[in-house]
Amino acid sequence: MSRTPVWFMRQAGRSLPEYRRLREGITMLDACNTPELAAEITMQPVRRHGVDAAIFFSDIVVPVKAVGVDLDIVPGTGPVVAAPIRDQAGIAALRPLQPDDVVGPIAAIRLLVEELGDTPLIGFAGAPFTLASYLIEGGPSRDHAATKSLMWAEPQLWHALADRLAHIAGSYLALQVGAGASAVQLFDSWAGALSETDYREYVLPHSRTALSYVAEVPKIHFGVGTGELLPAMSEAGIDVLGVDFRIPLQQAAARVGGEFALQGNLDPAALFAGADVVEGKVAAVLESAADLPGHIFNLGHGVLPSTDPGVLTAVVAQVHDSTERN
Amino acid sequence: MSRTPVWFMRQAGRSLPEYRRLREGITMLDACNTPELAAEITMQPVRRHGVDAAIFFSDIVVPVKAVGVDLDIVPGTGPVVAAPIRDQAGIAALRPLQPDDVVGPIAAIRLLVEELGDTPLIGFAGAPFTLASYLIEGGPSRDHAATKSLMWAEPQLWHALADRLAHIAGSYLALQVGAGASAVQLFDSWAGALSETDYREYVLPHSRTALSYVAEVPKIHFGVGTGELLPAMSEAGIDVLGVDFRIPLQQAAARVGGEFALQGNLDPAALFAGADVVEGKVAAVLESAADLPGHIFNLGHGVLPSTDPGVLTAVVAQVHDSTERN
Repeated sequence: MSRTPVWFMRQAGRSLPEYRRLREGITMLDACNTPELAAEITMQPVRRHGVDAAIFFSDIVVPVKAVGVDLDIVPGTGPVVAAPIRDQAGIAALRPLQPDDVVGPIAAIRLLVEELGDTPLIGFAGAPFTLASYLIEGGPSRDHAATKSLMWAEPQLWHALADRLAHIAGSYLALQVGAGASAVQLFDSWAGALSETDYREYVLPHSRTALSYVAEVPKIHFGVGTGELLPAMSEAGIDVLGVDFRIPLQQAAARVGGEFALQGNLDPAALFAGADVVEGKVAAVLESAADLPGHIFNLGHGVLPSTDPGVLTAVVAQVHDSTERN
Repeated sequence: MSRTPVWFMRQAGRSLPEYRRLREGITMLDACNTPELAAEITMQPVRRHGVDAAIFFSDIVVPVKAVGVDLDIVPGTGPVVAAPIRDQAGIAALRPLQPDDVVGPIAAIRLLVEELGDTPLIGFAGAPFTLASYLIEGGPSRDHAATKSLMWAEPQLWHALADRLAHIAGSYLALQVGAGASAVQLFDSWAGALSETDYREYVLPHSRTALSYVAEVPKIHFGVGTGELLPAMSEAGIDVLGVDFRIPLQQAAARVGGEFALQGNLDPAALFAGADVVEGKVAAVLESAADLPGHIFNLGHGVLPSTDPGVLTAVVAQVHDSTERN
């Protein structure tokens, strides 16, 4: 049997009523750092949807908070950094991540590995560019103007910052793998804001550093709006490339030379269009993946909070039913 | 003399202190609909920066508000529609735009044409997809889930809506040209959220309808994050294709067959990186444009509100100085 595996980015989280109940009165960072909570939230979609993998519930800022960056995750806004990092002193304060810094999340991984049994747990970290953008801008940004300016005007400072973040992200992934995660996903939310030339010069080396920490497990790499960056991202030392919903998987495969397993790429907006549309679009993704060297079915971006979880469950069933091969 | 012409998307607006003073206590829609104000705001960057064209100061929702859609432009949020349009009744209420609906903006155009003399005035309208997204979602959306769902699940309804909006946008452009605008830009902010297949099926025919209203003047078409859509957008009946900052102009030219003049594409974030970086990046854009059949220097997205206007003035001077050919 080699049916296509399926999981969903952000499968754990706001689309599930059982998650919203669990989070009542508990901050995001507390949820990430409390072993039983992080483990339970990670398990919820596995139980409900029957997906083939759990993705570790953690926020990309967890490891930078853990090394002492003063930040909070503000509901409705996202991470807000008290003192944006834009100089050598700020960078110097970003010390390496130690096991003691992330005791809660790593304990959650251990609980999960035991509970999951044969179902793989995918570890999770944010990529250096996206982390750097939060720290430099002081919060979410649509234009990344301060980040890009620093990158272009002070490349040495940029590389020093991105290197520190790469080691922090890499260490966080390595600790997750050490505790039993059997694959990882490095998530670069905002790499799509860059040209390929800038990506290759300022970002790729650091993503490669982060991923080099976990040579022994399969590595998935994904960024939003990165159709044009796939060839570069495929050079980061990865096994599976996540594909945004904007280009067909076949086209993505052609761009990266057909050597990689691809993950994706149903548009999360399709889940709102009714059962017939969903079914047709799931079938189209599977068809586009027919000749790939490997395919993990997923969305082409995270689950939207207002998604009906029943639709996700149906997608899992369809992917399994239509790819079952004995 | 055939120096490269230069203007900036959103050159009129929040980056200018004289604009912020003028707007004090005046709503966006009132500013757009008051002839003297809209004209003055349009003129400000022409006087200050010495750009080669004025872009008409108008919001993309002005013509839909003008045909009776109950909406407001909320500071810090954007357009908010009282009753989102998602059914046949809502679409039926979108009546054709008549000259009497936009008396204020068209009077502004007449004032501008007289004041501008030889400097061209570029008319402005939002493209059908972007307008439809505002009306369907009820406001700005990052994922366009309701819009895409309606498009996929009820294609007839979608096409009926987009067709009405195409005629409204086209009529608004035609009235601007009739009053003296000597070119137009059709702006599709959010087309970059679509795959090329969806763009061609659901959007391109309607953008073509809108542009068909102004056959007699040069037509510029731009959308954010549309590198992959440029070949399709170039088929909308246009003369100049605006290029987002994510791909070099040379690469854009290769995609559309080298037949089109291109507009762009300095990253607006570069304007924050200091004079040396700006100068280098302006030179790189000009170099990338060297073999194009035509080039209008612009940003690869709108001017960011916190941009130092002095930097924009310097960019204009550099583009002029370095492309002056006698």
